[in-house]
Amino acid sequence: MTEKRRVKFIVSYDGTSYHGFQTQEDPTNLPTIQDELMRAIQVLTGEEVKITCAGRTDAGVHARGQVVDFLTTSRIPDEKFPLAMNSLLPKDIAVVKAETVAEDFHSRFGALGKHYRYSIYNHRIHSPFHHRYSYQVYPPLHVAAMQEAAGYFVGTHDFRGFCATGSPVKDFVRTIWHCTLTVTEENLLLMDVMGDGFLYNMVRIITGTLVDVGKGKIAPESIPQIIASRDRTQAGTTAPPQGLALLEVWYNPLDFPFNLP
Amino acid sequence: MTEKRRVKFIVSYDGTSYHGFQTQEDPTNLPTIQDELMRAIQVLTGEEVKITCAGRTDAGVHARGQVVDFLTTSRIPDEKFPLAMNSLLPKDIAVVKAETVAEDFHSRFGALGKHYRYSIYNHRIHSPFHHRYSYQVYPPLHVAAMQEAAGYFVGTHDFRGFCATGSPVKDFVRTIWHCTLTVTEENLLLMDVMGDGFLYNMVRIITGTLVDVGKGKIAPESIPQIIASRDRTQAGTTAPPQGLALLEVWYNPLDFPFNLP
Repeated sequence: MTEKRRVKFIVSYDGTSYHGFQTQEDPTNLPTIQDELMRAIQVLTGEEVKITCAGRTDAGVHARGQVVDFLTTSRIPDEKFPLAMNSLLPKDIAVVKAETVAEDFHSRFGALGKHYRYSIYNHRIHSPFHHRYSYQVYPPLHVAAMQEAAGYFVGTHDFRGFCATGSPVKDFVRTIWHCTLTVTEENLLLMDVMGDGFLYNMVRIITGTLVDVGKGKIAPESIPQIIASRDRTQAGTTAPPQGLALLEVWYNPLDFPFNLP
Repeated sequence: MTEKRRVKFIVSYDGTSYHGFQTQEDPTNLPTIQDELMRAIQVLTGEEVKITCAGRTDAGVHARGQVVDFLTTSRIPDEKFPLAMNSLLPKDIAVVKAETVAEDFHSRFGALGKHYRYSIYNHRIHSPFHHRYSYQVYPPLHVAAMQEAAGYFVGTHDFRGFCATGSPVKDFVRTIWHCTLTVTEENLLLMDVMGDGFLYNMVRIITGTLVDVGKGKIAPESIPQIIASRDRTQAGTTAPPQGLALLEVWYNPLDFPFNLP
C-alpha cells in the first residue's frame, strides 16, 4: 500500500474571474478556485484529491494567504510543488508555498486566527487599477469617525447582527483582536481585521457599517449598542465582495503578529 | 454656426483588454482605447470626433496620465465631463480630468516631456495581483548593477539602437532627464524614465537591456558603448508590454517634477 501524506498549500488568487473558492453543486459558467486546484493536482499526481480550505471565499473575493490541504501519495518534494502547480494553473492563481504537515492537520478546523483586509476606494472618479480590488465610495468619508468606530469591534462579542441571515451557525460569539482603518495614497482606505473566526459576510457587514459611519449616517459611539442589539437591520449594508481579501491564516499562536490580550 | 472648442482629457486605463490606444485599420476582436473614448463621446455629444493622443500605447500597455484632445461643439462644462464620460466607459478606462484648452493645443506635438514607468516582478512564483501590470523575471536580479546602468541612459543620445527596427522615424536623438530603478515591497522593481520623447519600443528595450545587466549578461559600464553603437542587436530584448505604463505628459516646463539641467 502506498503511503499517503498530507500537503498544505498557501494559495494566492485574484478572485475576479471565479465563482468563489468552493466547487459548486450546481455549476455556473465560471470555474471555482477549488476546481482549478483540483484539476492541476490531478494532472500532476494522477489523483482526484479532496481539498479543504481555511476560509471559503465568495465569488469575487481575493486571497493572498488562503490555506488548503489534501492527502496524496505523490512523492513530489515540497519545494518543487509550487512551480509544478503554477505551470498548470491560470495566471490569477498561484501556489506560494507547499509543506508536508501532520496527517491530522485541518486547514479549516485547525485555524486559530485569520487576517482579512477590506479596501475602499474613496473618490468620485473610478480607478481602472483598483476597481477589481476595492469598493468605490463617492462622497469623501469621515475617516477619523470610521477609525473610532473600528476600535469598538475589538473584543469578544455576539456578532449575530453582523452575520448574513439564514446562516446555519449556532454560536455567534467571536473575538476580534485587531480592527483598524489606514489611509494610503491614491484615496485607498484599508480596513484590517484579525480575529479567531468570522461569521458569514461578517467582514463585509462591518465594512458596510463603517462606511455608514464615514457618511455620517451612524455615530461611531453607537457601534457598541448596534453590536449588542444582535439585530442585522441595525448594522450597515453588506459591502461588495471585490474589496475583500483573505491575507493570512494562523495555526500557531506564536505566528500571530501581536500579543493576545 | 456653432462654435467649436478643444477639450483635453487626462485618461487612465488598464490596457490588458485592449488592442492598444489607436483605432485599428484592420480591427481585431479586441477594441482599442480610442474606440471606447470615441463611442462614449458620440453618445454624450452626438458628434463623431477625431481624437489625438500624446502617446499611442501598444496592446497591453497601461496609462495613468494619457492625454487626448478633440474638437467639439458640446456645451458640457469641463467639470461635468469626467463623470458623464465615466458613466459610459468600461470600468478599465477612466477620464480623470477634462479641460477646455487653446484651439491650437495638440496633445502629441505639444508634449514637451513624458514619464513612463516599467514594473518588473522579480520572483520565481508569479503574482496573481501583479501579472497584468508587470514583467515577471525569475532569477534574483543584481539591482545595484541595474541602478548603475540606468544612470548611463540619462543625457542626449542617438537612441537608434533602442528603437524597434522598421520605425519610420528619421531623427533618433532624444534626451533622457531621469532614469532610475527603485525596489518596492513585494519583489517589485520600478524603472522610472522621463525624457523629451521616446522612440518606438524605446522604454521596453531599455528595460530588456537593464534586465540583462541584472542577470549579469551585460556589464553596467558597457551601456555607453551599446548606446554609441546605434546597433539594435547590441541592446537587450524588448520587454513585454504589460509592465509599461504612461504616467504623465508635460506641456509646460513649469510642471516638470525636476529642474532641467
